Amino acid sequence: MTAPIRVTVWGENRHEQLEPSVAARYPDGMHGAVAQGIEHHLGDGVRVRTATLDDPEHGLTEEVLRDTDVLTWWGHAAHGEVSDEVVDRVHRHVLAGMGLIVLHSGHWSKIFMRLMGTSCTLRWRAEHDRELVWTVDPTHPIAQGIPHPMIIEEDEMYGEFFDVPAPDETVFLSTFSGGEVFRSGITYRRGYGKIFYFRPGDQEYPTYFHDGVRRVIANAVEWAVTVRPERAAPTLLRYDTDDFYRGHGYEGPLDPEAEAALAEPAATTSDEDAR
Amino acid sequence: MTAPIRVTVWGENRHEQLEPSVAARYPDGMHGAVAQGIEHHLGDGVRVRTATLDDPEHGLTEEVLRDTDVLTWWGHAAHGEVSDEVVDRVHRHVLAGMGLIVLHSGHWSKIFMRLMGTSCTLRWRAEHDRELVWTVDPTHPIAQGIPHPMIIEEDEMYGEFFDVPAPDETVFLSTFSGGEVFRSGITYRRGYGKIFYFRPGDQEYPTYFHDGVRRVIANAVEWAVTVRPERAAPTLLRYDTDDFYRGHGYEGPLDPEAEAALAEPAATTSDEDAR
Amino acid sequence: MTAPIRVTVWGENRHEQLEPSVAARYPDGMHGAVAQGIEHHLGDGVRVRTATLDDPEHGLTEEVLRDTDVLTWWGHAAHGEVSDEVVDRVHRHVLAGMGLIVLHSGHWSKIFMRLMGTSCTLRWRAEHDRELVWTVDPTHPIAQGIPHPMIIEEDEMYGEFFDVPAPDETVFLSTFSGGEVFRSGITYRRGYGKIFYFRPGDQEYPTYFHDGVRRVIANAVEWAVTVRPERAAPTLLRYDTDDFYRGHGYEGPLDPEAEAALAEPAATTSDEDAR
Amino acid sequence: MTAPIRVTVWGENRHEQLEPSVAARYPDGMHGAVAQGIEHHLGDGVRVRTATLDDPEHGLTEEVLRDTDVLTWWGHAAHGEVSDEVVDRVHRHVLAGMGLIVLHSGHWSKIFMRLMGTSCTLRWRAEHDRELVWTVDPTHPIAQGIPHPMIIEEDEMYGEFFDVPAPDETVFLSTFSGGEVFRSGITYRRGYGKIFYFRPGDQEYPTYFHDGVRRVIANAVEWAVTVRPERAAPTLLRYDTDDFYRGHGYEGPLDPEAEAALAEPAATTSDEDAR
Repeated sequence: MTAPIRVTVWGENRHEQLEPSVAARYPDGMHGAVAQGIEHHLGDGVRVRTATLDDPEHGLTEEVLRDTDVLTWWGHAAHGEVSDEVVDRVHRHVLAGMGLIVLHSGHWSKIFMRLMGTSCTLRWRAEHDRELVWTVDPTHPIAQGIPHPMIIEEDEMYGEFFDVPAPDETVFLSTFSGGEVFRSGITYRRGYGKIFYFRPGDQEYPTYFHDGVRRVIANAVEWAVTVRPERAAPTLLRYDTDDFYRGHGYEGPLDPEAEAALAEPAATTSDEDAR
Repeated sequence: MTAPIRVTVWGENRHEQLEPSVAARYPDGMHGAVAQGIEHHLGDGVRVRTATLDDPEHGLTEEVLRDTDVLTWWGHAAHGEVSDEVVDRVHRHVLAGMGLIVLHSGHWSKIFMRLMGTSCTLRWRAEHDRELVWTVDPTHPIAQGIPHPMIIEEDEMYGEFFDVPAPDETVFLSTFSGGEVFRSGITYRRGYGKIFYFRPGDQEYPTYFHDGVRRVIANAVEWAVTVRPERAAPTLLRYDTDDFYRGHGYEGPLDPEAEAALAEPAATTSDEDAR
Repeated sequence: MTAPIRVTVWGENRHEQLEPSVAARYPDGMHGAVAQGIEHHLGDGVRVRTATLDDPEHGLTEEVLRDTDVLTWWGHAAHGEVSDEVVDRVHRHVLAGMGLIVLHSGHWSKIFMRLMGTSCTLRWRAEHDRELVWTVDPTHPIAQGIPHPMIIEEDEMYGEFFDVPAPDETVFLSTFSGGEVFRSGITYRRGYGKIFYFRPGDQEYPTYFHDGVRRVIANAVEWAVTVRPERAAPTLLRYDTDDFYRGHGYEGPLDPEAEAALAEPAATTSDEDAR
Repeated sequence: MTAPIRVTVWGENRHEQLEPSVAARYPDGMHGAVAQGIEHHLGDGVRVRTATLDDPEHGLTEEVLRDTDVLTWWGHAAHGEVSDEVVDRVHRHVLAGMGLIVLHSGHWSKIFMRLMGTSCTLRWRAEHDRELVWTVDPTHPIAQGIPHPMIIEEDEMYGEFFDVPAPDETVFLSTFSGGEVFRSGITYRRGYGKIFYFRPGDQEYPTYFHDGVRRVIANAVEWAVTVRPERAAPTLLRYDTDDFYRGHGYEGPLDPEAEAALAEPAATTSDEDAR
């Protein structure tokens, strides 16, 4: 991979506008801090842009997504304001091969819930917990160069039970000084896309300036780039016997006669079925 | 478990109405054949009812679902006609502990796609393929009493790539006389619910009268019953330090001042976020 | 399953003989405490016997193992004294369907290392850590009736990295007051046998009198019983085309002529290969 | 990774000496064909050497292994002749980070069985089956550039049940014209080492000249190189409270008094325990 990785850092950017303490902590926005961390670690190996909720189409147009190898996602206060159309679009791109890194409170974003199929609920507490991030998959590329454990002096607590599917790979487990535990670095493959969820990071703490946290995100960016040559979603196709390579488009679930007998509305429905 | 397992067999029941050949093959409907197979194998151990698309609320009211330990799902021609409200309801019950068995073309149902987060696409061919179902997890309860391989003389072909998440457990792999392969018996846990997808079965073949197929479905019914004592969905709760057992309800993502400063619409949004 | 589960509780029984404090803590031996806990929770559902290192053949004769549905294993100071022949025998029975529950320091037993293929190393500290056992697979039968978290006031600490294969299922994660984390309840299938490793329990603490710990072990006993009807190891067999059900015994890797040309020693070797 | 990957291709090299037909098919030995395929695809990116059973220490000295990033293994007729000392050495290097690619009949090699912990048995037939290799993990680097399906006109048949642990990743499934199925491309992590088992390839067929098979092996070589900077095995160490980074060596399982009371033999044993 010699061309730079094209990264889009998405930030909700609401706390920064509504809460002066957050604005002071993250003067370039939380998305700005995340973007700078990636650039710091990957340098010329990446080309990073940012996008936020208030941008037209949340900054995630078809054109932008087509030009994005890896998307990072941080949201919290306004998950409900993200338009379903944009969520559909991001979902489609992930299944077609775009990498996705979901950060912290992004666990409750529409896109993460769509990809997981679960409630993505957990236990939490915003106090002064110290977080220790332990590596349980030491050969995983995302864990390279990360101390074992990595210490985050103060961060919000997330605890189990975290209602997500059993991860494909569990890279990190976090403990908190209060005694809780969390599967804090986990990977999934959905369609042709690679997904990494990473727990640390909150508007109330300067977590995205923590060098180890930044390094994890940078490692994950490199990991999440697909090795497939082109972006194309999985499709449903019919294959004739002994013809393994040339699939035919789907023509609806009913036999032609039954199909013809149906009124227009039902025919439309079967088109929808076929997407 | 001494009380009988409460099973609801859901069938789309459209092919049976629209295609005389299917009606002749499945005189009690495909759902009827599935229900009879479960009763045949589990006898007094189950109480089976059926529900179909054309029933009010598709036969899947809150009351019915609350009274259902395991739901089986077969649909094909009219996935798009299943109301989103019913899909939401089934989804909620699965996450809260209801077992779900998705059959054959149910791979493209709204509920399965919702739970998987992927496109659930595959390759297919409705010809005269023989299907061999091989057990690759011989200690799994769903595989007990099933021949290795189990032979289905004629069935529709489904082949890889099947775009689903990596299964929690792969119980069966199918091969077809045309040479294709399919992960045909796979399990997932989502929320507190257990899910089994089983490939065989098509309106064009008498698959749901095949005794081995029926036995697999009956085994899966027993497996999918949750061992948790009550139906309750995972929740997001706040826990104070050193209080591991009493969670507080979520009160929105913003601090009280910022919350107060927001107009009504946004407040509504954050309620939605909190679900 | 109406017949009682036949359980053999194996204990090394060395600390109890060598260290008076351990003998005082576990007057019936650690194996005695484990056995009593299982009987307490499963009553007539089990028939429990114990066996120890100093018994002839460590109490694990072919006859005993054939009469054992589930074996539990605790060892620590004398792993090296367990005879390889007995380890081979236990290994064979596990692959043929006997359940195995490995407790605490049993992580370094020959039988667990044989089944895992890894070093089974970890970090540890015998101080006054409080252990919290968190459930991350709440639908798993082994987790039923266990508090979330389960509190063990004082126990030895085991921390990651625990060098074991990625578990088939991760049921429990433990945290320690020192901040460490451990995958403390994990399952594996090997051959036709089901294996559960459970971390808590040490000669220096009265862990095997803890009611929750006992309940986990009792749950695991029920879970580890195979559903297969008979004990028989997987075999390598040759199958003719179109004959899926009648395998032939293996007759050595070389063609008959080459085989004949070889001297006796090599022929012996190939028999060994075929086991 | 700019330095070339150091690959050692190990071949049993017995069929080639004992069976003229094999010698004719593989004039440079099967190991020669495997080595050439890797060089063909990776060019300057690799430095490949070969080693065989009849070399001193089977060509796998400590020095050679220390100089090997990835080892490939093909054996069949003489698994029993591989010395346990060499197997121990290879095992130690895999756990410390050396990649291992096990080919075809290597499924019954001592090293693979040691790493898996199972019987590694399967069903087989050496007839004229066509093998189709289907990709079920299309984003996996090992699958890149491989046709879906990949057709091998004639090869030995291996069928399920294959008694191995549930793979970390299932990359390929094979079907055979006789109707059997096999998990033919599977990955495992053991210790710090990455392992790939790949089914195709037999002395009776020219499989290792098949360009797709060669490409899979070359992809696997690149995948199996560890990303960890140094070769070091996982260790068991004691850590003081609040000292997460400096572990102490293990000093035996008993308290000092009990340890002192023991005679020499037992002390030796506990050293062995500590490995």
